[in-house]
Amino acid sequence: MIDIRPVANTIGKLVVTLGAAMSLPMLVDYAHDDPNWKSFLESGILCAVIGSLIVFATRSNEKSLNLQQAFLLTNGLWIVLPLFGALPFFLGAPHVGFTDAFFESMSGLSTTGTTAFPSLDTLPKGTHLWRGQLQWLGGLGIIVVAMIFLPVMKVGGMQFFRSEGFDTLGKILPRAFDIARETTLVYVFITVACAVTFIMLGMNGFDAVFHALTTCSTGGFSNYDASFGAYPGAPQLAASFFTILAALPFIRMVQLVRGDAMPLFEDVQVRAFLRWLFYAIAVIVLYRLVWLGAENPFHVMRETVFNVVTLTAGSGFGTGDVTQWGSFPFAILIMMGMIGGCTGSTTCSIKVFRYLVLFKAVRAQIRRMHSPHRVFPVMLEGRPLDREVVGSVMAYFTTFMLSFGLLIVALALTGLHPRTALTGAWATIANIGPIWGPEVSANGAVDQFPTASKWLMVIGMFLGRLEVLSVLVVLHPRFWRQ
Amino acid sequence: MIDIRPVANTIGKLVVTLGAAMSLPMLVDYAHDDPNWKSFLESGILCAVIGSLIVFATRSNEKSLNLQQAFLLTNGLWIVLPLFGALPFFLGAPHVGFTDAFFESMSGLSTTGTTAFPSLDTLPKGTHLWRGQLQWLGGLGIIVVAMIFLPVMKVGGMQFFRSEGFDTLGKILPRAFDIARETTLVYVFITVACAVTFIMLGMNGFDAVFHALTTCSTGGFSNYDASFGAYPGAPQLAASFFTILAALPFIRMVQLVRGDAMPLFEDVQVRAFLRWLFYAIAVIVLYRLVWLGAENPFHVMRETVFNVVTLTAGSGFGTGDVTQWGSFPFAILIMMGMIGGCTGSTTCSIKVFRYLVLFKAVRAQIRRMHSPHRVFPVMLEGRPLDREVVGSVMAYFTTFMLSFGLLIVALALTGLHPRTALTGAWATIANIGPIWGPEVSANGAVDQFPTASKWLMVIGMFLGRLEVLSVLVVLHPRFWRQ
Ligand SMILES: [K+]
Ligand SMILES: [K+]
Repeated sequence: MIDIRPVANTIGKLVVTLGAAMSLPMLVDYAHDDPNWKSFLESGILCAVIGSLIVFATRSNEKSLNLQQAFLLTNGLWIVLPLFGALPFFLGAPHVGFTDAFFESMSGLSTTGTTAFPSLDTLPKGTHLWRGQLQWLGGLGIIVVAMIFLPVMKVGGMQFFRSEGFDTLGKILPRAFDIARETTLVYVFITVACAVTFIMLGMNGFDAVFHALTTCSTGGFSNYDASFGAYPGAPQLAASFFTILAALPFIRMVQLVRGDAMPLFEDVQVRAFLRWLFYAIAVIVLYRLVWLGAENPFHVMRETVFNVVTLTAGSGFGTGDVTQWGSFPFAILIMMGMIGGCTGSTTCSIKVFRYLVLFKAVRAQIRRMHSPHRVFPVMLEGRPLDREVVGSVMAYFTTFMLSFGLLIVALALTGLHPRTALTGAWATIANIGPIWGPEVSANGAVDQFPTASKWLMVIGMFLGRLEVLSVLVVLHPRFWRQ
Repeated sequence: MIDIRPVANTIGKLVVTLGAAMSLPMLVDYAHDDPNWKSFLESGILCAVIGSLIVFATRSNEKSLNLQQAFLLTNGLWIVLPLFGALPFFLGAPHVGFTDAFFESMSGLSTTGTTAFPSLDTLPKGTHLWRGQLQWLGGLGIIVVAMIFLPVMKVGGMQFFRSEGFDTLGKILPRAFDIARETTLVYVFITVACAVTFIMLGMNGFDAVFHALTTCSTGGFSNYDASFGAYPGAPQLAASFFTILAALPFIRMVQLVRGDAMPLFEDVQVRAFLRWLFYAIAVIVLYRLVWLGAENPFHVMRETVFNVVTLTAGSGFGTGDVTQWGSFPFAILIMMGMIGGCTGSTTCSIKVFRYLVLFKAVRAQIRRMHSPHRVFPVMLEGRPLDREVVGSVMAYFTTFMLSFGLLIVALALTGLHPRTALTGAWATIANIGPIWGPEVSANGAVDQFPTASKWLMVIGMFLGRLEVLSVLVVLHPRFWRQ
């Protein structure tokens, strides 16, 4: 039997933390004389009480986690925290049912950014702040999990990054605090810098803080129905810059802050990510200017940079309807969303690192096919990629694609239009956000979707955020029999 | 340098054979007093002359092929033969340009079945017969190539089947004749049985032969604009039956004819294929009857069986518009098309065998993740799957998916609607046939597509038919430097 006490204990502590975080939106609503502040008080008390009970009931002397417990913790975090994070939407504005409240909370903590609320402009400021906080906390959570747990769990080739993290499971917790602290500092610094930049570019204070929270987590929630279209000018370029930062490996930025910039600039993943972004932007800008003869090159460039960056890194803010650009840019944007950002960042999707491994492996395979008697080692960053990493990345890619296909079929079963089913599966399993289809509300919300579709999309966000394989491991019967 | 003489010699002989095959449509048109017979005479003479010149110019004593030559031959066959097969469409009815003629010929020889001709009902019988023959010959070609060359070329895990084929390259040619002869006999027998069945079910002789040629090659060309909708009754069930036969591994049917039925019934690939077909049919029938409340269960069942079977095995005959069944059946049909039939059959797409390997490999990966210190061998059919096969299948799946994505983007670049780009890439790279989208003509033809789209689709058919990797090997610069 797996001892779930240390797992439940950690989750309990984080539930209490989540409750404490609700004091911020409570204060904001109170300061604006909005009676909605009470819902945050109630939710916060519920979190504090239930969380404390869990912590109290699961005390144990065991401080380190074994592999099973690491899997359970990772899965448990993104099931239990969204439950508690949903309370304010349920007890307070916009007073939606359990499905929509949970959907919004999961969309926040998984940094997906699809909203279930059809009218954002009328919501209290506290509710918006809470949505922003959920994304910001979810982004922080995934960086820490990606650096500490995924390499040990060997999820989709993440063991390649083990030497930079932890080698022995017993050492996880003590060193976790060091890494978590430094990463949190970098994350906070980037967020503050983002908010200050937004303010300097003319955003009001609240909008700046809110959008900084959802930009630096590559979450993509907005507090306007027009999404980022409400700030069409320089703020979009600033948001693109900070989205790119948030899509880089945070360990490299920790090294940068320690005074060593080379690891960041020499990282093959970072270089490939920036190169691919540049290509996609250049091709779409040329297409729109030369083929379609769009006028106002500066406007086209800014709009393209913003949309390519936010859809690739998966924040998914919208500015107008990108489908209007034509099939080709739209197809590129959909494909870019399947790439995502760098490993160890807040971004989701398949990620640059895995494509680099896939390309190397396929090239090695092709060489092996025409020269069967020679050995072609697969190398990345000057290090040989062992077969285990390659096999693990390929298993990840396969599982991701099959889950994506199944999710499309399942969403179609709930009655969604094929286009909605396709982009809905894409938006959720790759945690990007925007969905195109006849059932989508004017502000991009899914409130009109059947309940079954919403739950399938919740499953998609959960699978995508936890890199699919970590969930399947826990669903495997043998996992529980050890 | 690679000695291309034996390769060109074989191709030359097949060009002569192709020319000889043109005598059939010539006779048919002559018998119907259609002046179109001359175009087949001209094309046939051209094939005979040029083919003979090639054979004459490339005489050599070398009878066996090395690995490089096997790759060149496989690629060369599906480039040169479509060129010569296109002559009758260019010199005779429907007198289309080079692009459409080559498209139709490639669609035939690759057993894709997408047509470039908007008005099939008005074409001469000889032209139709030639379209049928192209598919039939293409189907025969791929079975032989899949049995003889792909295992030695190690394309996408095909080396798993090597023990059943050939171990030494030097022995390819002598044994190739044995296998090719027996397989051809089985293929001819199935085609004759199919034609006879069609006649007994009320088809006229010509339609029966034509549809037998395109059914047993899982090609899917029709001589009616209404496709198989022209024969709505029992012929559809018969076509479903023969399509399933054509999607089974032909080596198993050779064994069956030799008196040993067990290998066929015990083949895990065959069992999985039939099981998945059954599930898909059952789910769609239930959905249409129970959810949508469709009346006439027998009609629904027949229509569903026919469409699931032809889209999965990739013949892709149409009966009415399956998009009218709703998103869910449509999404399932699209996914089933991504499966295809069994290895060593006339079908294309990813194929059942590779999914079985992928599932096994992903399961082994998941077990390895939660029990890192135990060894989980990957087994299939009671034999261990070595890492090379698993890696090769995964490389195939990755390359197929990436090519599919790139093809969608490229088709969108030519201006096609996103739906057309998506289903057009699907129909061609998986060699299925039907395309849905606003640019498609009433009979499903691509004649209104931009020329660039047609050529991209030709590339898609070529890549799909040759299992993507065999093409990439030849495109690799190092291939030529050996
Ligand atoms: K997002
Ligand atoms: K076909």
